[in-house]
Amino acid sequence: MNTTLHLHQTHHTLADFEGIFASTVELLKTDGLHLFPELYLTGYPLQDLVLQRAFIDKYLTFVNKLDHWAKNLPKASWGALVGGLTYDVEADSLPKKIKNVIFEIAPGVGMRALYTKRLLPNYDIFDEQKYFTPGSENAFYEFNGDTFALQICEDMWASSFHELDPCKLMLEDAQKKNLKLKAIINLSASPFEAAKKNKRFERAKNISLLFGCPFVYVNRVGGEDEILFDGTSFVMDGNHLALELVSFKAANGSFNFQELKGQYSETPIFREENTWEGLFSPRIDLKSKPAVLKTWTQSECADVLAGLQFGLQEYAQKSGFKKFLVALSGGMDSALVLAIVKLSLKPGQSVEAIYMPSIHSATLSTELSELLCKNLNIPLTYFPIKFLHSTVKNAFKQTFTEPFEGLVDENVQSRLRGMLLYTRSNQTGAMVINTSNKSELAVGYSTQYGDSVGAISVLGDLYKTEVYQLSNHINQHFNDLIPVGIIHRGPSAELRDNQLDQDSLPPYERLDPMLEGILSYQMGKKQLINLGFIEEEVTRVLNLYLKSEYKRSQFCPILKIKAKSFGFGYRIPISKNLNYHL
Amino acid sequence: MNTTLHLHQTHHTLADFEGIFASTVELLKTDGLHLFPELYLTGYPLQDLVLQRAFIDKYLTFVNKLDHWAKNLPKASWGALVGGLTYDVEADSLPKKIKNVIFEIAPGVGMRALYTKRLLPNYDIFDEQKYFTPGSENAFYEFNGDTFALQICEDMWASSFHELDPCKLMLEDAQKKNLKLKAIINLSASPFEAAKKNKRFERAKNISLLFGCPFVYVNRVGGEDEILFDGTSFVMDGNHLALELVSFKAANGSFNFQELKGQYSETPIFREENTWEGLFSPRIDLKSKPAVLKTWTQSECADVLAGLQFGLQEYAQKSGFKKFLVALSGGMDSALVLAIVKLSLKPGQSVEAIYMPSIHSATLSTELSELLCKNLNIPLTYFPIKFLHSTVKNAFKQTFTEPFEGLVDENVQSRLRGMLLYTRSNQTGAMVINTSNKSELAVGYSTQYGDSVGAISVLGDLYKTEVYQLSNHINQHFNDLIPVGIIHRGPSAELRDNQLDQDSLPPYERLDPMLEGILSYQMGKKQLINLGFIEEEVTRVLNLYLKSEYKRSQFCPILKIKAKSFGFGYRIPISKNLNYHL
Repeated sequence: MNTTLHLHQTHHTLADFEGIFASTVELLKTDGLHLFPELYLTGYPLQDLVLQRAFIDKYLTFVNKLDHWAKNLPKASWGALVGGLTYDVEADSLPKKIKNVIFEIAPGVGMRALYTKRLLPNYDIFDEQKYFTPGSENAFYEFNGDTFALQICEDMWASSFHELDPCKLMLEDAQKKNLKLKAIINLSASPFEAAKKNKRFERAKNISLLFGCPFVYVNRVGGEDEILFDGTSFVMDGNHLALELVSFKAANGSFNFQELKGQYSETPIFREENTWEGLFSPRIDLKSKPAVLKTWTQSECADVLAGLQFGLQEYAQKSGFKKFLVALSGGMDSALVLAIVKLSLKPGQSVEAIYMPSIHSATLSTELSELLCKNLNIPLTYFPIKFLHSTVKNAFKQTFTEPFEGLVDENVQSRLRGMLLYTRSNQTGAMVINTSNKSELAVGYSTQYGDSVGAISVLGDLYKTEVYQLSNHINQHFNDLIPVGIIHRGPSAELRDNQLDQDSLPPYERLDPMLEGILSYQMGKKQLINLGFIEEEVTRVLNLYLKSEYKRSQFCPILKIKAKSFGFGYRIPISKNLNYHL
Repeated sequence: MNTTLHLHQTHHTLADFEGIFASTVELLKTDGLHLFPELYLTGYPLQDLVLQRAFIDKYLTFVNKLDHWAKNLPKASWGALVGGLTYDVEADSLPKKIKNVIFEIAPGVGMRALYTKRLLPNYDIFDEQKYFTPGSENAFYEFNGDTFALQICEDMWASSFHELDPCKLMLEDAQKKNLKLKAIINLSASPFEAAKKNKRFERAKNISLLFGCPFVYVNRVGGEDEILFDGTSFVMDGNHLALELVSFKAANGSFNFQELKGQYSETPIFREENTWEGLFSPRIDLKSKPAVLKTWTQSECADVLAGLQFGLQEYAQKSGFKKFLVALSGGMDSALVLAIVKLSLKPGQSVEAIYMPSIHSATLSTELSELLCKNLNIPLTYFPIKFLHSTVKNAFKQTFTEPFEGLVDENVQSRLRGMLLYTRSNQTGAMVINTSNKSELAVGYSTQYGDSVGAISVLGDLYKTEVYQLSNHINQHFNDLIPVGIIHRGPSAELRDNQLDQDSLPPYERLDPMLEGILSYQMGKKQLINLGFIEEEVTRVLNLYLKSEYKRSQFCPILKIKAKSFGFGYRIPISKNLNYHL
């Protein structure tokens, strides 16, 4: 039949049942089949919320209301598929079984669950097997005389890593039943990663070719603390991308099967993404020795920038902040953070910068901070910590006999800044944005409760060399917003005179690929040396990495833009025998 | 046959393969069957370590060495069962399948895997389904003419919550095969909880009665960051506890079947622990209205105290600290923390207290801090923050136009203390011990980067009323170590004049059971009101709880002494629509 499909990549706060009800009623008017993301009815990921009686009560009441609304509509020529949960609850309303399902909403009929997600991801940030019971059946859905095969997110990714391949099972079943499928419909809640879009397209193309019908992908939009959902819903028609929705924005898109013109002559080629390693999409270019980090394309840089702006705004808006506060150092990281905050600002929002020089801060740092704020048109407050620093130092000298020098004297400057920054935040109600990068986090090159403070980390999933890449990308597209003096000076914490990062760390060009090897390739010393790195440097880096676990454990949420970030999906015990890695 | 069983509740750091090898060689000498805990060969929980090539390489090398050692021994009359991992690895030494197994070590023969854990716990802190593939077979092990049924930890706990009941499957299998079982052997890595010991005994008794043979339970000892393993291995012989090893200490115990004299006439009664609620063992006494928190018995208080001392020492020793640093306020929490640290000290260790009064600190706080340190024989440093406080205040007044009052002025005192405490820690190399309690954490009644700082939290799983219980317990057993003046004064943060906790919070007698309802009973507003609490107070508490998630997300590891603590097993998104709970 001549059916129109409507893709709705919606954007709601977790558990905003009123908002979700309103948008459902609003969108379900037009003829055709309406598609909404995985767990559209609740949001995702919910974690322990799904176990709370208050959540369960409110959710079930909402679903009843929606069902009632649909039942009482006059019959009409639309249908809808929405992601949601079904509960098998005990008498006291605690859950026995929870399923991640696709509901049909039919006007004049109501709601019914059609399909239960079969492949529950349980790696990295995913804990679905903690909460959900998997399905064991395929689902073929009839609408308007056409047959659609249904999937939820991970179901499309099966490979050597999983026990189960839902695509394969579905295809066999469809062939056995002699079904002519109109399309595969996949409702997703799939987190953003730089360069993931093309992986999805490639996979979708292969599934479309395999089944000989279009693959329709509807993904949610939302920033859930560290996890970003980009939407980017699409329709893959054989080898042809027939529709692509925007990223990081709620959007609706429609298509009619008559309009499609994809070719189905190619043979699908499935790569096995879902090995342990494939899951973490390591980004090392092995062509040179020592190995180097793969660089992002301009389009990937643009996606990363969009993701960071989106994630920052999501966290701020959901936490109720309208003001931002960034501590500038005159260096690269804080400059990039400030630029990203500025570029992300919505009407009614503002950002303030504060520069807190100590006796070790170079005049150049002051000048570059001023220039940056001038470029960005942001008020800069100059708040020197020299007097406070010496006051603390004197008090310590009067009270204690131990020397006040080295790390003691360095860290105190950083912690004074942390304290002042949060005092200012209390004064204005601004959200403090953390300025650490992934390289720093990996080697513990920051002061706990000092420069590591913040409500959210914007750069915590970018290695230092990627910080430079993104800065250059911004300068190319926004008329040298970031002073080139900042990009070109050597990185320094400026906690003692003439301090440079490279005094205690290998150059970032070598450090970053080593870290990527450790974090995303599961590499140890042996493998890193095989990549062409010097043993002494490898050992030093591994030592720094292993000994700084405690700092990462108290860090703020990090906007996740890679398959493996320091955050909810990174689960390493602090206490352990470090020799296993050395 | 007349077999002796040796129970070894061992204590090793995670991945300390050399230490584990040495202790295995040391212990395997005596005739009889030697039993070691779950994952004895690696430690537990390993989390992502099991995926790292370095870990896998080192572990497999170690297992080969152990196998080789056993193979080359002369035949002897001992055998051993040890917990470990088996790996099915890909060519590049990344894992395809990992199993949590029991190995036999046989002199002159070597090692072989006998049994794979069937029930993989995946709730709260447990993520075993993330890493391990479950087994599907029972294992009956022959030693010296006797037949033993093998289990790993969770296998004994199956109930309505799980799909699978390994005990039931094993019993049916044994009956079908007409086996006469000598004993059930359960190798465990089971975390400590106050009052859990008796639950284990009760369950073991029922399994022993069900099978008509003794139940032998060997549990590991260790503090892994927040998670405490108490050992407390035992033999349950029908209705009779035939052997019980100490808690929180490596120990060995042996028994011979001829010595046993248990009765097997009772009928087992299994309670369903493993519902969602049962898993979190809520501690509310429902007899009074409003409901109150159950109080601990003296023996439970003693276990909790032992657990906290053990966990603190484990974290300190594994992190390489020999000095402790505690900030005293003159109040209950810091006094109890200091007492616990003092009671836990090992030779060569020391603790220092620092008291940092502001203009709002009462003279009584000073006197009580001095008295406490006198009782405990701990050096106390007096480090007033008045001048620093006014210096910051003046600098803000000169730099910014916004008022410096209310929360701004309160938090700055707390953050100055955090900064000074860590400066002192940098000076002496001492570990800073956090002094927050669970009630404070639940309602966000602390200053981020202020009084919430620390390497580890000792009281973070104790509600305020439990802090008092434990203090009274200590005073009864250690001659009023904590000045009664501290126990009897009203709780106050002393960040403004005449401030009392009760000004902004309900009395702890009502707050604590409300929090337990929310956290361990999954309760919402409706259920709390049904428990007899006032709606206005419930709403206030829920609001405080919901809005402070961001503070908990950056908190240090909390020694876990309950089924549900704020820590690794507590997984609640920060951003969400709060209305679902109100």
